[in-house]
Amino acid sequence: MGIEHRKVKKQITFLDALGNPVEGKRLNIKLINHSFLFGCGAFEFIPYVNNGIDELKQLTDSWLDIFNYGTLPFYWGMYETEEGKPNKDALLKTAQFLKGKNVKVKGHPLCWHTACADWLMKYDNETIMRKQLERIDRDVTGFKGVIDMWDVINEVVIMPIFDKYDNAITRICKDKGRVRLIKEVFEKAHECNPEATLLLNDFNTSINYEILIDGCLNAGVPISAIGIQSHQHQGFWGMEKLEEVLERFSSFGLPIHFTENTLISGDLMPGHIVDLNDWQVEDWPTTPEGEERQAKEIETMYRRLFEHPLVEAITTWDFRDGAWLGAPSGFVRKDNSLKPSYNMLKKLVKEEWSTEVTVTTDSNGCVDLEGFKGEYLIEGEGVSEKSEFTDSEPLKISV
Amino acid sequence: MGIEHRKVKKQITFLDALGNPVEGKRLNIKLINHSFLFGCGAFEFIPYVNNGIDELKQLTDSWLDIFNYGTLPFYWGMYETEEGKPNKDALLKTAQFLKGKNVKVKGHPLCWHTACADWLMKYDNETIMRKQLERIDRDVTGFKGVIDMWDVINEVVIMPIFDKYDNAITRICKDKGRVRLIKEVFEKAHECNPEATLLLNDFNTSINYEILIDGCLNAGVPISAIGIQSHQHQGFWGMEKLEEVLERFSSFGLPIHFTENTLISGDLMPGHIVDLNDWQVEDWPTTPEGEERQAKEIETMYRRLFEHPLVEAITTWDFRDGAWLGAPSGFVRKDNSLKPSYNMLKKLVKEEWSTEVTVTTDSNGCVDLEGFKGEYLIEGEGVSEKSEFTDSEPLKISV
Repeated sequence: MGIEHRKVKKQITFLDALGNPVEGKRLNIKLINHSFLFGCGAFEFIPYVNNGIDELKQLTDSWLDIFNYGTLPFYWGMYETEEGKPNKDALLKTAQFLKGKNVKVKGHPLCWHTACADWLMKYDNETIMRKQLERIDRDVTGFKGVIDMWDVINEVVIMPIFDKYDNAITRICKDKGRVRLIKEVFEKAHECNPEATLLLNDFNTSINYEILIDGCLNAGVPISAIGIQSHQHQGFWGMEKLEEVLERFSSFGLPIHFTENTLISGDLMPGHIVDLNDWQVEDWPTTPEGEERQAKEIETMYRRLFEHPLVEAITTWDFRDGAWLGAPSGFVRKDNSLKPSYNMLKKLVKEEWSTEVTVTTDSNGCVDLEGFKGEYLIEGEGVSEKSEFTDSEPLKISV
Repeated sequence: MGIEHRKVKKQITFLDALGNPVEGKRLNIKLINHSFLFGCGAFEFIPYVNNGIDELKQLTDSWLDIFNYGTLPFYWGMYETEEGKPNKDALLKTAQFLKGKNVKVKGHPLCWHTACADWLMKYDNETIMRKQLERIDRDVTGFKGVIDMWDVINEVVIMPIFDKYDNAITRICKDKGRVRLIKEVFEKAHECNPEATLLLNDFNTSINYEILIDGCLNAGVPISAIGIQSHQHQGFWGMEKLEEVLERFSSFGLPIHFTENTLISGDLMPGHIVDLNDWQVEDWPTTPEGEERQAKEIETMYRRLFEHPLVEAITTWDFRDGAWLGAPSGFVRKDNSLKPSYNMLKKLVKEEWSTEVTVTTDSNGCVDLEGFKGEYLIEGEGVSEKSEFTDSEPLKISV
C-alpha cells in the first residue's frame, strides 16, 4: 500500500485581468498545512500562553515546527475544580492562540470516570447526568468555532466496571448502560455543535471495543471518528498487532484517529502492569539506545498509519519527557533538547511528505502540480495566494 | 433470597347453578404444569415420534416425567441438507407430539455459523442473507402456534471471527457486523410471529456479550429473553461465577434463560481446551462419585436459578449420556437407567416445588390456596376444571 491517496493532482491556470492566460510566470507553490492531522498533546501551551513563561517559548516553538493539531485538557475535575467556576478563560485563550498558528484543537474529554469532579458525587444519578449534559452544552457551545473537535467520552469499555475508586461517571454508566450513556452525551455534543468532529476514544482495542462501536452505530450515535489509544510504555505493539487493529476497526468505514500514541526512549514498563498508572518510578531516564529505538518505532508506526486510507490523525501524547507517568515519552527531553524521534518526524512531515515546487506557466497559463493534500501558498511576481488542495478540481487564479 | 415470587395466592369460590356458595365441598387441587420452564434437549423425540423406535419409549417417558419444555434442533445444515428440501414433517410431527404432552417447544437455532448448510457457500453474501431471512420466514411462519419460541441467532460474539472453517454465516456477519445481522434476523422472526419469544444465545458470558446485548437493545432489536449457555464439562462454574453472571446479565431487566446447561458425572474435561468440540475421547464413562457430584451441582445450580426473579427457564442440554461430545452429561445413563441427578431434579420439580392440596370449601364456598405458579387441575365430586394460576385474581367456579 502506498501513500498516493494522501496526494492530489491539481491544474492551476493563471489569468490576467482580461482573462488571458499568463505564460512564463515563475511561481513557488508550497504546502503550508497538511490535511492529515499530525498531532501532539498541547498542554504546555496553557502556561505559555497565559503566563508567558519564557522557558516554554523554546518548547512550544519546537512543537509548532512539526504539528498542525493539538489536544487540550478538559478533565472535569481540573477544568472545574469548584462547581460553577470553570477554567474557561485560560483554555479559550490557549485554543485561540493555537488556532492563530493554524493548529486544529481537540478538547479531551467531555465525559470520563477518571479525573472527574469529586463534587459531583454529592448528587443523585439523575442530577449527575443532568450536570454532565449541561457541562457538554456549556463547553461545546462555549468553544464553538475555536474547538470543533472533541473526545466526547473516554474509555467506556471499563467505565461501568471501573472499581479503583468511586466516581460520579461510573455510577451513571452502571445505571444507564454503556450505549445509552454514549448516545446521550454524543447527541448533546452534536446538538450543540453539529459541525464538530466527535470521537469515541478507548485504550481497549479488543473485541469489546469493536462490539461497543458496532452497537453505538446501530443505535444511531453520531460518531465522527473512532479514537484509538496506543500507549506503548510496555513496548511497541509490533506490526502484527497494528495491522490487526487497523483491519478490525476499519470495518466500520469510519475515519480512525490514533488519539494517544506513546513510544518511549528508556526502559520498558514491565508487562505485568495492567493499569499503566500503577507504575510509579522515581526516575525514568531517556537513554541513547532508547532514543534510537523510539525514533525507529515512531517512524514505523507513522509510516504505516499515513498509508492507511482511513487514518486521518495521529497524536503523540507527550511532547516532552516526563509529562505522564514520568516516562521518557516525548519528542524532546526534559531540558527541551530535541530527540532523534523529533528530527525524524520533522523530516517526514516537513520534507518527505511535504510539497514545494518552483514552476513556470505554459502557453495556456497552466501549471500541473502533484502534492500532498492540504493548504498551499502560491507566491511569485506579485502573486501571494493561499488555497486548499484536497481534490483535483482545476483552479483559476487571476493575477 | 427465597422463592416466594414463584408462588401465587389464590382464592377460589365455588358456586352452584343459582350462584349460591357451595359449602363443605372436598376438592383436590394440583399443579399439573409449572409456569417456570424446566427444559431439556428433546432431540430423541424425533426418532421416537417419527419412527416409533421402542427403545426410546422408556427414555422419552422418563423425560416427560420431569420436563415441560424441550429444545428441538433446527441446525440449517441438518434441517435442510439439500436446498429446498427441509425436514419439516418430522420436526412438525415431533413438536405437535410434545405440545400434546403440555410441553413448550423451542427451535434452535435459526442462524448460526456452526452446523450451517454448506450449499449456501456457493452464493454471494447478498444472496446468503436473503436466503437466511427466507429461511426464518419459512420456519417461523411454518411452525407458528406449535413452536412459538426460538433461539434466533447463536454465538454472535465469535461469529465474525470464527476461523475453524469457512461458512456462509461468518461471511455475512463479517460483512454486516454483529448488531446489524442480529437486528435483521430478529426483525424478520418478529415480523413472522409477533407473539414468539425470541432469544439471543451465547456461551460467551464475558463483558463482550454484555456490550453486545447493550448495543442490540439500544438499536431496537426485539429480544424477548437473554440466552446463556453454561456447558460445564470442565467443572461447575461455582457460586461466585454464577452470581456474577446473574448480576451482570440482570442489569438489562430482561428475562434470562439458561439455555444449554451441562454438568457431567465423569472425569472433567481439561481446562486448557478452549473449544469444547476439540475434546475427542474414545470413552467417557459416568462414575458413581461423578454421579453424586453431578446431582449436587445440578441441585445447587437449579436452586439458585429458581430463586432468581429474572430467570424463567433452565434447559439441561443432554437428557441421556453421550449425546454431545460423548460426555456423561445426561440425567440418564446410556442404558436409560436413571441417575441420582434425575431423581433429585424430579423431587424438586414434582414435590418440593410442586403443589397438591385437598381442601374443603367454607360457608362462603371459598378455599384459599398458595401454590407454585402454573396450570392447575381442580377435581372432586363432579368437578374437573383446569385453570392457570399466575396472579392473585380471585377465581369463581360454577359446579
